[in-house]
Amino acid sequence: MHTVLSSASKQVIIGDDQPFCIIGERINPTGRKTFQEQLRAGDLSAVETDVAAQVAGGAMVLDVNMGVPLTDEAELLAKAVKLVQSLTDMPLCIDSSVVEALEAGLGAYEGKALVNSVTVEDDRMELILPLVKRHNAAIIALPNDETEIPIDPVRRVELVKKFVDIATSKYSIPLEDIVIDPLAMPIGADSLHADRTMEAISMIRDQVGVNMTLGASNVSFGMPDRHTLNAVFIPMAMRAGLTSAIMDARTPQVVTAVKGADLMLGHDEWGAAWIQQHRAKEAAKNV
Amino acid sequence: MHTVLSSASKQVIIGDDQPFCIIGERINPTGRKTFQEQLRAGDLSAVETDVAAQVAGGAMVLDVNMGVPLTDEAELLAKAVKLVQSLTDMPLCIDSSVVEALEAGLGAYEGKALVNSVTVEDDRMELILPLVKRHNAAIIALPNDETEIPIDPVRRVELVKKFVDIATSKYSIPLEDIVIDPLAMPIGADSLHADRTMEAISMIRDQVGVNMTLGASNVSFGMPDRHTLNAVFIPMAMRAGLTSAIMDARTPQVVTAVKGADLMLGHDEWGAAWIQQHRAKEAAKNV
Repeated sequence: MHTVLSSASKQVIIGDDQPFCIIGERINPTGRKTFQEQLRAGDLSAVETDVAAQVAGGAMVLDVNMGVPLTDEAELLAKAVKLVQSLTDMPLCIDSSVVEALEAGLGAYEGKALVNSVTVEDDRMELILPLVKRHNAAIIALPNDETEIPIDPVRRVELVKKFVDIATSKYSIPLEDIVIDPLAMPIGADSLHADRTMEAISMIRDQVGVNMTLGASNVSFGMPDRHTLNAVFIPMAMRAGLTSAIMDARTPQVVTAVKGADLMLGHDEWGAAWIQQHRAKEAAKNV
Repeated sequence: MHTVLSSASKQVIIGDDQPFCIIGERINPTGRKTFQEQLRAGDLSAVETDVAAQVAGGAMVLDVNMGVPLTDEAELLAKAVKLVQSLTDMPLCIDSSVVEALEAGLGAYEGKALVNSVTVEDDRMELILPLVKRHNAAIIALPNDETEIPIDPVRRVELVKKFVDIATSKYSIPLEDIVIDPLAMPIGADSLHADRTMEAISMIRDQVGVNMTLGASNVSFGMPDRHTLNAVFIPMAMRAGLTSAIMDARTPQVVTAVKGADLMLGHDEWGAAWIQQHRAKEAAKNV
């Protein structure tokens, strides 16, 4: 299954026969006080640094979120989308919980975007899916509904199937434009959370066959040495069937682990990419 | 499935509901010229350092191999087994391609050993399996026979089934005393080798249910940054069903990845072991 995203000039394919798609997550004011104040004052200059850092780190798609309280998020997101597209040719993931902001972001976007995200709640699907269809975008869906964020992977897969059914039949969204986020929960809260997520991933791969993405670093929340845990978890989840993750591409340890896992899964023929990135690192050391 | 190994005073369980079993691989003269010369002269003093380093690094079982050309390997292995057992209470994996050496090693051993290894060749099974049975040991079996080391995971699984059938019915070896080594081959030789091994691992888990071990570092042979690749591959293989590996426990990067994967698989409740090893590392830094 290939989910094809694009900017005006560049295409990125998410798929189980492709190198893992790293969606850079940094362009997001959540938990960044200074960035929030800048955005509130209409100053988007920090975005430039963030784009450069994510691209340098190996991001293939950039997530753009402008969720700052007490601002016109729609206006801000449209502005940010235009700015980021002027800085890079990478496809974007337009990220908001506000429907008007998604609409403005999609309106400002050139190419085929990924939208982050919709839940399996009737009112959310009703608002977001027609928008996704109208803009010919791809959509990230989370398997939770009005009543629950299910812990049980079987229940998560049921919600995924329900979503796929509604999105394809009622809203005519092609299966390949659906990307499921099977929910990463902190291992510190429950020792079985990561295993359940991997279980959900392999069931979704086997039973539904769609692409998946994950806010993977959630898994290590509250634990020491988070980068190492993320660098362990993502390859395991890749083996289970995960084809993309929303992650901070500025962490070489995790990005390198992803590249190693690509090699292990046969998505880096002769290890060409692995060897090349190793040489680049060695060269950088010798500068 | 629990494979129970023991020394005179300590038990180690290999199992899919247990922390991953790290079998330390260093007590082996292969490729170590100085060590070979020492052993030829009857000097086993280097073994002491090796045992200490593997134990400090986190090995739970120690592989002991005394394969030095032009020596009496049987005598040497018996001597080494006694020495290692005087230095540590860890169970041992007695490793030789020479049947007489296995016999001498098992004879010298106190407890329930793991034997490394037998192939699915009639004459090898006929020589080694009665020995394993007589000493109530566990045995590592490699899925290759007289005609081939199969590349195809399906064929490997067929050989595993054949072995399990012969070992249990003809030689009365209990299923839990069989540990399969599904063969790790270098990714540099074929981009699909690691994926095939993981495929074989999950098929063996699902269809046979026995414990498995792997000379895991073979996978990265010939590639740059091997530790990182090993630290990526082993967690992926653990998710597929690998329950143990023969590896150099002196590489913290790989050992830490194994511990992280234990946590991800729910084999480290509340992350107690993960947090503890992190604290120990931090404490060591501050000394």
